[in-house]
Amino acid sequence: MPTKYAALLEKVYEIHDLGKALAVLSWDREVNMPDAGTTARIEQMTTLSRLIHELSTSDEYGEMIENAAAELNGADYDSNEASLIRHLRRSYEDARKLPSEFVVRASEVTGQAHSQWVSAREENDFASYRPWLEQIIELSQEQAELYGYEDEKYDALLDKYERDMKTAEVRAIFDAVKAELIPLREAIDERGTAVDDSLVHQHFEIDKQKLFARYAAAAIGYDFSRGHLGTVVHPFATSFSQNDARITTRWNPDFLNPALFGTLHESGHAMYEQGTHPDLARTPLARGTSLGIHESQSRMMENMVGRSRGFWQKHFPVLQAMFPAQLGGAAVDAFYRAINKTQSSLIRVEADELTYNFHIILRFELEQAMLNGELAAKDLPEAWNEKFETMLGIAPATDREGCLQDVHWSKLYFGYFPTYALGNLYAAQLFETAVSQNPAITDELAQGQTTSLVAWMRENVHQHGRKFTPRELILKATGKPLSHEPFIRYASEKFSDIYGL
Amino acid sequence: MPTKYAALLEKVYEIHDLGKALAVLSWDREVNMPDAGTTARIEQMTTLSRLIHELSTSDEYGEMIENAAAELNGADYDSNEASLIRHLRRSYEDARKLPSEFVVRASEVTGQAHSQWVSAREENDFASYRPWLEQIIELSQEQAELYGYEDEKYDALLDKYERDMKTAEVRAIFDAVKAELIPLREAIDERGTAVDDSLVHQHFEIDKQKLFARYAAAAIGYDFSRGHLGTVVHPFATSFSQNDARITTRWNPDFLNPALFGTLHESGHAMYEQGTHPDLARTPLARGTSLGIHESQSRMMENMVGRSRGFWQKHFPVLQAMFPAQLGGAAVDAFYRAINKTQSSLIRVEADELTYNFHIILRFELEQAMLNGELAAKDLPEAWNEKFETMLGIAPATDREGCLQDVHWSKLYFGYFPTYALGNLYAAQLFETAVSQNPAITDELAQGQTTSLVAWMRENVHQHGRKFTPRELILKATGKPLSHEPFIRYASEKFSDIYGL
Repeated sequence: MPTKYAALLEKVYEIHDLGKALAVLSWDREVNMPDAGTTARIEQMTTLSRLIHELSTSDEYGEMIENAAAELNGADYDSNEASLIRHLRRSYEDARKLPSEFVVRASEVTGQAHSQWVSAREENDFASYRPWLEQIIELSQEQAELYGYEDEKYDALLDKYERDMKTAEVRAIFDAVKAELIPLREAIDERGTAVDDSLVHQHFEIDKQKLFARYAAAAIGYDFSRGHLGTVVHPFATSFSQNDARITTRWNPDFLNPALFGTLHESGHAMYEQGTHPDLARTPLARGTSLGIHESQSRMMENMVGRSRGFWQKHFPVLQAMFPAQLGGAAVDAFYRAINKTQSSLIRVEADELTYNFHIILRFELEQAMLNGELAAKDLPEAWNEKFETMLGIAPATDREGCLQDVHWSKLYFGYFPTYALGNLYAAQLFETAVSQNPAITDELAQGQTTSLVAWMRENVHQHGRKFTPRELILKATGKPLSHEPFIRYASEKFSDIYGL
Repeated sequence: MPTKYAALLEKVYEIHDLGKALAVLSWDREVNMPDAGTTARIEQMTTLSRLIHELSTSDEYGEMIENAAAELNGADYDSNEASLIRHLRRSYEDARKLPSEFVVRASEVTGQAHSQWVSAREENDFASYRPWLEQIIELSQEQAELYGYEDEKYDALLDKYERDMKTAEVRAIFDAVKAELIPLREAIDERGTAVDDSLVHQHFEIDKQKLFARYAAAAIGYDFSRGHLGTVVHPFATSFSQNDARITTRWNPDFLNPALFGTLHESGHAMYEQGTHPDLARTPLARGTSLGIHESQSRMMENMVGRSRGFWQKHFPVLQAMFPAQLGGAAVDAFYRAINKTQSSLIRVEADELTYNFHIILRFELEQAMLNGELAAKDLPEAWNEKFETMLGIAPATDREGCLQDVHWSKLYFGYFPTYALGNLYAAQLFETAVSQNPAITDELAQGQTTSLVAWMRENVHQHGRKFTPRELILKATGKPLSHEPFIRYASEKFSDIYGL
């Protein structure tokens, strides 16, 4: 191995290991830590973060990257080495663009803004949060200028979550999604057959839910021998290596969907991490390439697999045997319809597969307007409600159920939201390609099996980790740039069938 | 705050936080991590260990300690500041005494010796382990020379587990223990009333054992709001701060004692950490001062409280209500006798409160002989069996149940064993003093309450953390140096009563 690249790798491993240690502390905080341990844990995490930041923004590290890059000059673009250098250069440049003064100031403002948001939401008091949102908007504008951009300010922020994606592209795609999905939603509202979901709104003992969630996660291909299921308030997936990729769930005793489909969702995320190529271990390439592609894997497992007919034809009898009183007499088709009910609702995290996209597009449009100075913080509630009405046909009665519902803005996460809906679109495009290349996938899914589907994802998505940008990956995997069409085809077919359109 | 001391504290906090991060990774490895995650976890832990070692042995750190010491010159001996400087100087000196070359070599040898020990124990094949034990003995001798000593070689190693304790002191005390306990054990064997412990050897559902273990741990004073109970193969306690001190347990469905008294034992350890003074937080003083004093707190809670009549007069009805089929008809006194049965046995970790001390004294004597070149590795099995026979009246038929049973030597832990028995002695001396100073403690214990006992330990032991050496602490707390007499009084009275001597 070239010596300068080898020296760089040692430093990369060190930074990586510290980052994973930080991830373990964070996971433990959510899953096991007593609340009383918070202060000390924040101190420990701050020390680790500071060390990581120092190591990964030092002049020395920059020189190591450049020396290794010079040494590797001419390496194949697709090689692990060249991919790592590309990634490290971009991350290093990004990290150096934010002066410490800005990072400290942003951290102070978001710390307070977050607390203010918590109480504002509790008390449905947008006015008390407004001054903080104003500061957040200003910080986001400043951050965008620090990162820099060619076309639109929003590009600078979106790039941090979805590398190289342009705002104009997302806008065009989301506009097309709206143009297709709003009529579909309206048709379901006006002419669709009613769907009764009382089946899933019963009492389900949590211990048995846990057993079934594990069964279902294993059934879609989550490898428990390289994972762990923990209980938390706000579910997430995380990985400490490709051989230790964990999922978390929260349990609701009176509604089957959240824990069950939440577990499948997080399993999809963790399977992506479990599937990265071992050669990428201990480098920042050993993870999903972007939030959007990550979300494609979780949504695919949650919805396209976990809410499919085939999956439940195979596995519903097991669920029935576990809950005979609740589900014993139910037909699998009634259950399939119940878990796929679509209906406009106010809260994003409770939205169904179809209407969820509107929640995202709305936020995407509003945060651009705020960033560009076209929408003032004080006018957010009104703008929110107007857009909501247009896309979802209803509007929230309170800001608590409206523009105060999400944590993201208080954390300065402008540019994050669109990745959720991009995930749905990537998922459909990847799924359609996989099925067209290997028809056995469809047959297996009809039997509740995912072996060939997961193998295809492993080959075309997972193994590459972060070697390629989402744009490169989707082109490599599907032969085409991202399009809204596969998702529209998938959603139209599925919901037209369920609602008898 | 003096500026050089303040600068030192910042560095101390940093090293401390990294040490606690390492502890979280270690805890997670035992409690949650899938086995497949081992390789990556070892890499992460090695990176953290290396960073901690670099920071805490650097020339710069040594200068910071000395600069702060000069600045604080004349500070009260008992002050946190002077105590921290004392501790840091000693730790720094110790760490610098071992050259990296030795540390690396020792780590390689123990890594292999440990694997060899695992298979040698499995196959009861001492001969295959003998060459490794020889290397371990040589390494221990070398280590003792590197640390240096005034009187005896063993002092150099004992000091690392029980700061400032001398081998000659321990020898005198252990000889006195032997002189008193061997006749007591023989009297019990020859003239004692038989004790039937079949009550605790029944099937006890693990879920209910877990509930009761939590109940009992809370009853003795372990604060679950600042703790956590996890399940592991080899139980331990650990703390990430005084507000996050955790215990672990393993569960045996057919024997009540291991999980129940194991939980109380680990709770005693964790209560010590929970009780350190908040002003010591984020420094190495925020933990128990030595293995022996730590063990005093765990043994006190396990045996002097957890195996007392008073505790069970109060709490046995709760246990009975949980296990009516197993214990419903039993008298509390029969249960008290069952959990206090004493009988010579071969395996240290299964030994009872009384005979446990012999297991330790035997190891203490043997490891000195090996260290001093008076006992060759090849002669260990014979020497082991001879001493066993003398102290316990029985001898193992196999090395697997004899000199191959413990992990410690393969890990180079010469000097560690005596702290287990010292713990029993410290416990009795502290307990006797506490009761003499506050008679309410006895009354409370007769009611199954530990409030005043824990308050006394908090005041006289816990809060000081590592400010004082064990010798200083025991003198401060009890007014006397360590003596075997309180333990002998306690054990003679308790077991004479149970066995009707």
